[in-house]
Amino acid sequence: MVRSFAGSADPRFLEVMSSLVRHLHAFARDVRLTEEEWQHAIDFLTRTGQICTPTRQEFILLSDVLGLSMMTVGINSPGGDGITEDTVFGPFFVQGSPRIDLDGDVAADTAGPPCHLSGRVLDQDGNPVAGARIEVWEADEDGFYDVQYDHGELRGRGHLFTDDEGRYGFWSVVPAPYGIPSDGPVGELLTAAGRSPMRPAHVHFMITAEGHRRLITHLFVADGPHLSSDAVFGVKPSLVVPFARHDPDEGPGGRQLADDWYSAVYDFTLARETTSTAPIENPPGGG
Amino acid sequence: MVRSFAGSADPRFLEVMSSLVRHLHAFARDVRLTEEEWQHAIDFLTRTGQICTPTRQEFILLSDVLGLSMMTVGINSPGGDGITEDTVFGPFFVQGSPRIDLDGDVAADTAGPPCHLSGRVLDQDGNPVAGARIEVWEADEDGFYDVQYDHGELRGRGHLFTDDEGRYGFWSVVPAPYGIPSDGPVGELLTAAGRSPMRPAHVHFMITAEGHRRLITHLFVADGPHLSSDAVFGVKPSLVVPFARHDPDEGPGGRQLADDWYSAVYDFTLARETTSTAPIENPPGGG
Repeated sequence: MVRSFAGSADPRFLEVMSSLVRHLHAFARDVRLTEEEWQHAIDFLTRTGQICTPTRQEFILLSDVLGLSMMTVGINSPGGDGITEDTVFGPFFVQGSPRIDLDGDVAADTAGPPCHLSGRVLDQDGNPVAGARIEVWEADEDGFYDVQYDHGELRGRGHLFTDDEGRYGFWSVVPAPYGIPSDGPVGELLTAAGRSPMRPAHVHFMITAEGHRRLITHLFVADGPHLSSDAVFGVKPSLVVPFARHDPDEGPGGRQLADDWYSAVYDFTLARETTSTAPIENPPGGG
Repeated sequence: MVRSFAGSADPRFLEVMSSLVRHLHAFARDVRLTEEEWQHAIDFLTRTGQICTPTRQEFILLSDVLGLSMMTVGINSPGGDGITEDTVFGPFFVQGSPRIDLDGDVAADTAGPPCHLSGRVLDQDGNPVAGARIEVWEADEDGFYDVQYDHGELRGRGHLFTDDEGRYGFWSVVPAPYGIPSDGPVGELLTAAGRSPMRPAHVHFMITAEGHRRLITHLFVADGPHLSSDAVFGVKPSLVVPFARHDPDEGPGGRQLADDWYSAVYDFTLARETTSTAPIENPPGGG
């Protein structure tokens, strides 16, 4: 059966499929998979596909909770001193986020205390990267992304470009810890495993710039819960950032804050281009 | 990540999931899975789930063409002298087939030359099994199952029970070789692999009887094409049966045949019950 892919015109396809078949069969043999378990798996995978929509990607979630996403991230990370580490892409990226100016606000009507995030995008030599495109997305204070509501609006997500000195800065809200969606097949899996669906508070980033490797990562809020028990294994210490609290005041960009607000600063370092710099324009699946 | 299932209350679930995670990660590491390939896999699996309907099961088809179905069949086969061998279940079983009497006709309006199949159902000691339930289903002479048409009728499938001497007999049509559905993700996979979607001509059987292991198998038409290149690896020599041609005549059950007709005879031997005798009442997935 491994040899059944030998007729492929593409040696990489042959390599991947032959390995997949070998490992899949080894798994079935090792556990002596029963026919009932096989049926359950067919049913599970079918329901996982059928619950997907353009704004819900249950197969990414499955890959995330099985650690396959972080394994893939790790395999493809350039590593090296100072290069910002990657983490999972997650299932909540949406194409077509609004563009904002430097120190603009992506929160829209996202509920939560105001928060300003800023820093620079640098290359491996420490030089600023001008014109880098930064996509950000995050959950609100109740732990839900915009697409998990019925309002149909894009909130808590946007994109901006670094200035000539590689600087970025934007307003949003302080992200909250949340449970990944547990009303579908992946939720059943976590329940059966006695595993928590919780993720520590974080903001998603996807940064693309000519001549550099695309960076997909998070910034995590320091000192929050679940940092050591992330349901999708996404936390890396280098991505955990203190969020400072401020009294009501004038914030960056001249914004007048009537209540407490927060800020965090982080510089991203991009690797030189290795394979691809394209932003993800079409989120996988969900069609 | 393997340890993430350690909290499961069910030791079998722990065993299966830990092995799955180990093999899945080993696969990703071995081929150094790229992020683009990971995205392609997410998209492929999503589309595989979304093309499923109550009468189309693309994940079973995927399992079939990857050889996982036959691997699972092999793991669970009791083996042993004289016990009829199993083969793949396939994606075309439908619940609620019509019941027919001995020597009745399951063809309904299925196109193809008339064919009578008969024989006995026996236990491991060679004694007849009375009252065994035999589900049969097959494609028409154009290679399509009823559910692949829009007519919404059950044709070419039915069930009957063995008599006191373990005998069964029914009319249908001579099955034809056919290509598995290739207009979906599994078809893309076969095309990329340069693999043929063709299966040799066969009739599906699912036989259940109190105190015996459920038998899921096919009978294949001897001397037909694709017996050595079945797209789903389902052929076993013990299941290949000669189909005899007859001149117009009176056939079994007093049926008057105006044209040539065919017949085949096969005795099935069931294993003693090991795990389950339940017929499959709810086909997996297909929401």
